[in-house]
Amino acid sequence: MNVLAFPKGKPMARGSERVEMSHGAGGRAMQRLIADVFHAAFDNAELARGEDQAVLPVAAGRIAMSTDTFVISPLFFPGGDIGALAVNGTVNDVAMSGATPLWLSAGFIIEEGFAIDDLKRIAQSMARAAKAAGVTIVTGDTKVVERGKGDGVFINTAGVGIGAPDIPLGAARIEAGDAILVSGTVGDHGVAIMAHRAGLQFETTIESDCAPLNGLIAALMASGARVKALRDPTRGGLSATLNEFAQAASLGIGIIEEAIPVRAEVFGACELLGLDPINVANEGKLVAVVDARDADAALAAMRAHPLGQEAAIIGTAHADPHHFVTMRTRIGGQRMIDWLSGDPLPRIC
Amino acid sequence: MNVLAFPKGKPMARGSERVEMSHGAGGRAMQRLIADVFHAAFDNAELARGEDQAVLPVAAGRIAMSTDTFVISPLFFPGGDIGALAVNGTVNDVAMSGATPLWLSAGFIIEEGFAIDDLKRIAQSMARAAKAAGVTIVTGDTKVVERGKGDGVFINTAGVGIGAPDIPLGAARIEAGDAILVSGTVGDHGVAIMAHRAGLQFETTIESDCAPLNGLIAALMASGARVKALRDPTRGGLSATLNEFAQAASLGIGIIEEAIPVRAEVFGACELLGLDPINVANEGKLVAVVDARDADAALAAMRAHPLGQEAAIIGTAHADPHHFVTMRTRIGGQRMIDWLSGDPLPRIC
Repeated sequence: MNVLAFPKGKPMARGSERVEMSHGAGGRAMQRLIADVFHAAFDNAELARGEDQAVLPVAAGRIAMSTDTFVISPLFFPGGDIGALAVNGTVNDVAMSGATPLWLSAGFIIEEGFAIDDLKRIAQSMARAAKAAGVTIVTGDTKVVERGKGDGVFINTAGVGIGAPDIPLGAARIEAGDAILVSGTVGDHGVAIMAHRAGLQFETTIESDCAPLNGLIAALMASGARVKALRDPTRGGLSATLNEFAQAASLGIGIIEEAIPVRAEVFGACELLGLDPINVANEGKLVAVVDARDADAALAAMRAHPLGQEAAIIGTAHADPHHFVTMRTRIGGQRMIDWLSGDPLPRIC
Repeated sequence: MNVLAFPKGKPMARGSERVEMSHGAGGRAMQRLIADVFHAAFDNAELARGEDQAVLPVAAGRIAMSTDTFVISPLFFPGGDIGALAVNGTVNDVAMSGATPLWLSAGFIIEEGFAIDDLKRIAQSMARAAKAAGVTIVTGDTKVVERGKGDGVFINTAGVGIGAPDIPLGAARIEAGDAILVSGTVGDHGVAIMAHRAGLQFETTIESDCAPLNGLIAALMASGARVKALRDPTRGGLSATLNEFAQAASLGIGIIEEAIPVRAEVFGACELLGLDPINVANEGKLVAVVDARDADAALAAMRAHPLGQEAAIIGTAHADPHHFVTMRTRIGGQRMIDWLSGDPLPRIC
């Protein structure tokens, strides 16, 4: 079922209105909610067609398709909100293939009683994020669940991008000797959320790094550097991404703690919260694996982009039958970087 | 974040295991859940690549993209379950454009404590439905929310199809004089769910009509009938779809009650439950609007397909400045068919 709207009838009153079960029932109330909240914000010709699907022109080649569901709590946080996150998260997952993200779908699960003004704020944030990333929200769906059967709003986005490389980027292409780069400071998103939840005060507010990375990736690819794999280290942080790479490539990965950029406030907050920045989610950073001969060119290309100014070469891949990820620590030791176990950071995205 | 798995490590024990917050944390527990439940069921090369997106070949032309989120309660019901529904619902929304659905994404929001065996059952049902519809689940995402912040499992699917017509099918193409057809009995899905919830017993169990309609649509299009618009009458039922068509086409629509196929059991249950079958959701039916000269050919093509055996011509579009939908009743009167108001059938899909 589509969010396709019929912008007729009285607009909804402003202020204290809340989502009711009837807003998910497929009738006039749903049509009005969709028109007033989603169509008003996302305003584009495909949605305006009013069908249950978008129809989109493609050239012969390869498209990339990805999806992500967002259940972050709280919905609004320093540096972003669930709406911006839902757009950027899927833009980034599509872009990591080397494709150009163009179109998003959006599926909402709204808890009965949710304030319509908050829903509008989220939709407007999605619209701004989509514009900034150069993508269009072309189709959608709205569901309402009873009070106590959801948590405010959950958002799923799926994305389609065009022009993916014939031989897709991916962990399977990583070879021993390849350089590992990160596009900037790690841990900002997760620490911003945790600090906000815990009510921690710092001299400067720690903000989520929530951002679309398609522009940075385009700059990196344009540099001519032989890029093997790209991934955004979200849940599980840098350590999960590196372990995924090591397993999928059947290689070891060695990183250098000193080389990993971490904001001083994030480092401090991690000490307080008992977290390691390399285990903490990012929403505007990427890990790039490139041919070692191109590491400097890749680094220069990333640093020349506003979202990659603090990019760094943090390690290399090497032969290792155990596929371990290891880190040379600041004090000169060597430690294993394992997958995170348990969930110290629930509902971080 | 992808459902991409690393099928290493011990498989999970069978039986009483339940989803924990750690299954959504991006670490080893999540990888194992995804491998054991989703990859085991969906088994395909794109998922096996282990990236955060699928990369898919397309010819030059038009793709169709749609999304739908499923929050149905209960999760298992006569004639289907949330898994089959999540696949067929999006397959149908993509197919209604005239495109051939090929690829799906799947996003899961699982409530902490949900039985892993039930999740496996749902994933296996999705896999069977995907196979039957000729589509592949190529990318996905898994989130876990705390007990009491969800309701078992919610599933979003997005779908992409290829070969959409250059001039898309759609309500805007409907003209006065066009014939309105329905592909079979209406109300089966909604009544099956409501009867099941209410614990009503009938001589034969009323089952959901949950089914993929892409084959039926292909048969209809192959007949050469000039099809103007197709839509599946889900939430809000036939009456919502006809009102959407009337508004978008700026026409009136007249239907004949006697011509609308309704199962006797569904009719009886509707009487008991105070529902009108034309307001009740369907999950395996479509409404087709075709040039009047092709109505018989379209009807014959639909009836020749297993999912269209009870297809019927139920009315016509006509000029009407009010864009009303009206029905000639069994007793010879004329009544307005308005949008449903309120939500007599919450969480029907």
